[in-house]
Amino acid sequence: MADVVPKERKILVAVDEGEESMYALSWCLKNVISQNSKDTLILLYAKPPRAVYSALDGTGYLFSADILATMEKYSNDVAACVIEKAKRMCREQADEVKVEVRVESGDPRDVICQVAEKINADVLVMGSHGYGLIKRAFLGSVSNHCAQNVKCPVLIVKKPKCSSSGTK
Amino acid sequence: MADVVPKERKILVAVDEGEESMYALSWCLKNVISQNSKDTLILLYAKPPRAVYSALDGTGYLFSADILATMEKYSNDVAACVIEKAKRMCREQADEVKVEVRVESGDPRDVICQVAEKINADVLVMGSHGYGLIKRAFLGSVSNHCAQNVKCPVLIVKKPKCSSSGTK
Repeated sequence: MADVVPKERKILVAVDEGEESMYALSWCLKNVISQNSKDTLILLYAKPPRAVYSALDGTGYLFSADILATMEKYSNDVAACVIEKAKRMCREQADEVKVEVRVESGDPRDVICQVAEKINADVLVMGSHGYGLIKRAFLGSVSNHCAQNVKCPVLIVKKPKCSSSGTK
Repeated sequence: MADVVPKERKILVAVDEGEESMYALSWCLKNVISQNSKDTLILLYAKPPRAVYSALDGTGYLFSADILATMEKYSNDVAACVIEKAKRMCREQADEVKVEVRVESGDPRDVICQVAEKINADVLVMGSHGYGLIKRAFLGSVSNHCAQNVKCPVLIVKKPKCSSSGTK
């Protein structure tokens, strides 16, 4: 085993309000973060942009400004809640690891790819489903898209189901 | 940091004759395998089944039995060469890790998913492209398929290009 100085790795973890991304974070803390490492964990949450709500409103008259503001407020609350939960998990499972937080607005596919590129992440960790409050507004799988478009290694973690259903 | 007894993890690495899967293996040895771990690395190579050669021969008359036998021989040689290269890399980068080898015939998508399931892998590591001598015979991306169908976490590693080409 090479006795190398631990590299300072940037581990980008995309989190959302689903259980799967929290499981992915937990798996990462247990399996990727090494003890006494200089790893930095960057927790990334992609908030849906306001345009998404408008797009849902085909007529352009269905949602009043009030409703849009309420949705924006709700979306901020969810973001704060998700980030708080993720930070708590980091403290509990790997309290020595350095944690940074980023909350960005946009299609999670673009946000995740752009941040991975911008911070020059060493690895991107994410769940296989979900990402985004209004999932149906984002067609296709976020993890698929990121695996294809991000340059760094991508670790896709699925939350195991309780029962081991039939294997092909 | 939790001071837990290291778990015996089964790390399945799908290798093929492309440089990318060797890069994925190398990345895994540097970033996933922990020192003094009880990890077992399972190197998996999927050989194209004989049926693939036949399928390439639309008429059923193009390839003689001789040619098919030659292709089979070639395919075995490639498998042996890939596995040897992968084992050498393991010895050089992580000589304490336990290494096992599996060579299976079939569509790499099926082979990789089936083996991951059968051995109850803790994580599957693979490159994002390639897999298989005759790539065009297998439509679609192998890594995409596996990320969607394998139950365990999947780490998809891309070989970085020399130049950092334009970011979107």
